[in-house]
Amino acid sequence: MFNNRNTILRLSKYKKALVRLKSLGFIKVFSENLSDAVGVDSSQVRKDFALFDISGTKKGGYLIDNLIEKLNEVLGKGEVENVIIVGAGNIGTALMKYKGFILEGVKVVCAFDNNPSKINKDSDIPVLPIEELTNYIKENKIKTAIMAIPDLFAQQILDLMIEAGIKGLLNFVPIHLRVPDDFVISNVNLEMELDTVLYYVNAIENQKKEKK
Amino acid sequence: MFNNRNTILRLSKYKKALVRLKSLGFIKVFSENLSDAVGVDSSQVRKDFALFDISGTKKGGYLIDNLIEKLNEVLGKGEVENVIIVGAGNIGTALMKYKGFILEGVKVVCAFDNNPSKINKDSDIPVLPIEELTNYIKENKIKTAIMAIPDLFAQQILDLMIEAGIKGLLNFVPIHLRVPDDFVISNVNLEMELDTVLYYVNAIENQKKEKK
Repeated sequence: MFNNRNTILRLSKYKKALVRLKSLGFIKVFSENLSDAVGVDSSQVRKDFALFDISGTKKGGYLIDNLIEKLNEVLGKGEVENVIIVGAGNIGTALMKYKGFILEGVKVVCAFDNNPSKINKDSDIPVLPIEELTNYIKENKIKTAIMAIPDLFAQQILDLMIEAGIKGLLNFVPIHLRVPDDFVISNVNLEMELDTVLYYVNAIENQKKEKK
Repeated sequence: MFNNRNTILRLSKYKKALVRLKSLGFIKVFSENLSDAVGVDSSQVRKDFALFDISGTKKGGYLIDNLIEKLNEVLGKGEVENVIIVGAGNIGTALMKYKGFILEGVKVVCAFDNNPSKINKDSDIPVLPIEELTNYIKENKIKTAIMAIPDLFAQQILDLMIEAGIKGLLNFVPIHLRVPDDFVISNVNLEMELDTVLYYVNAIENQKKEKK
């Protein structure tokens, strides 16, 4: 296991770019192509690939199919991954329908909500009452979840999920959640991301005004 | 203007935590409270505040209202910020209804889509044809946009938006977009975030199996 989160992020980006190139009919790719598509130096691309025993021929580049296969091995994406979504509000519902996950071999198998009007056991992706969450996790050996619920309940529900066997979370709840050391959490804080953009836009505009 | 993105992210987090504390009835806060809520050292909290001339009393902590006011000044969030959303698909529609933005003083004023069935000029947040995008940006002096459209059109549409006056983007399109130097882009790559979680969960599980 390698522990560098940035490396993994880059590998995920390479894979995404490769799948796109393949869908456009390309068979071979050069480190320079990937460098352009991902926004890193081509020397970094070659270093990353060397690290995982992926080698190309100097003149011929890399075979896209080989690269995707290798990257799938490294990223552990050989088989379809079953994931649950906790919270069937606006964000949760959008993620249930999100095509990007399907393309990546991720299957959202079930969602959970505490609002009775959201419950729907017969839809493609069933929405079950939150009371059934921990049993579902145990029975179906679910390891990874996505959470998009109000702040107030987030830590409590996460604790129950961890007890039931969840090992990794993609978290949309904009608070700091406490998790065990061997637990993986990836936070997507939409307000904060937008705040940062707004701050910089304002700062740039103010600088321009001052210059005048 | 200070250029450290991580500092801004922390300040945004402090503000978010403070707004929550205030809503719970608290009046004062200590650096240790914020340290817990945001997940950084309390010495870091004090350093950040000192950097922006925010000082507390040693015994009494900080007044929450003062902190929020100062942070709003620093983050440039005194007035409501008008933002547009390009792409009224699953993600775009979820963001149009996203309460977190409203709480942060961000107003989504309009959305755009190329699918005629999505167009709705009479709803709370109108959805207009993509052809009207650049005119809308110019006429309403919009500076910040959120984009959630298919990969294929993203760079082309972004170029038009930049030409029309957009200065910052919260981007949900999972490709590397090229932008000018004075442009601010914040990328939320949902597939990649989930991929990273899945990778680590698999790696942890495999390590456990090997140990057995």
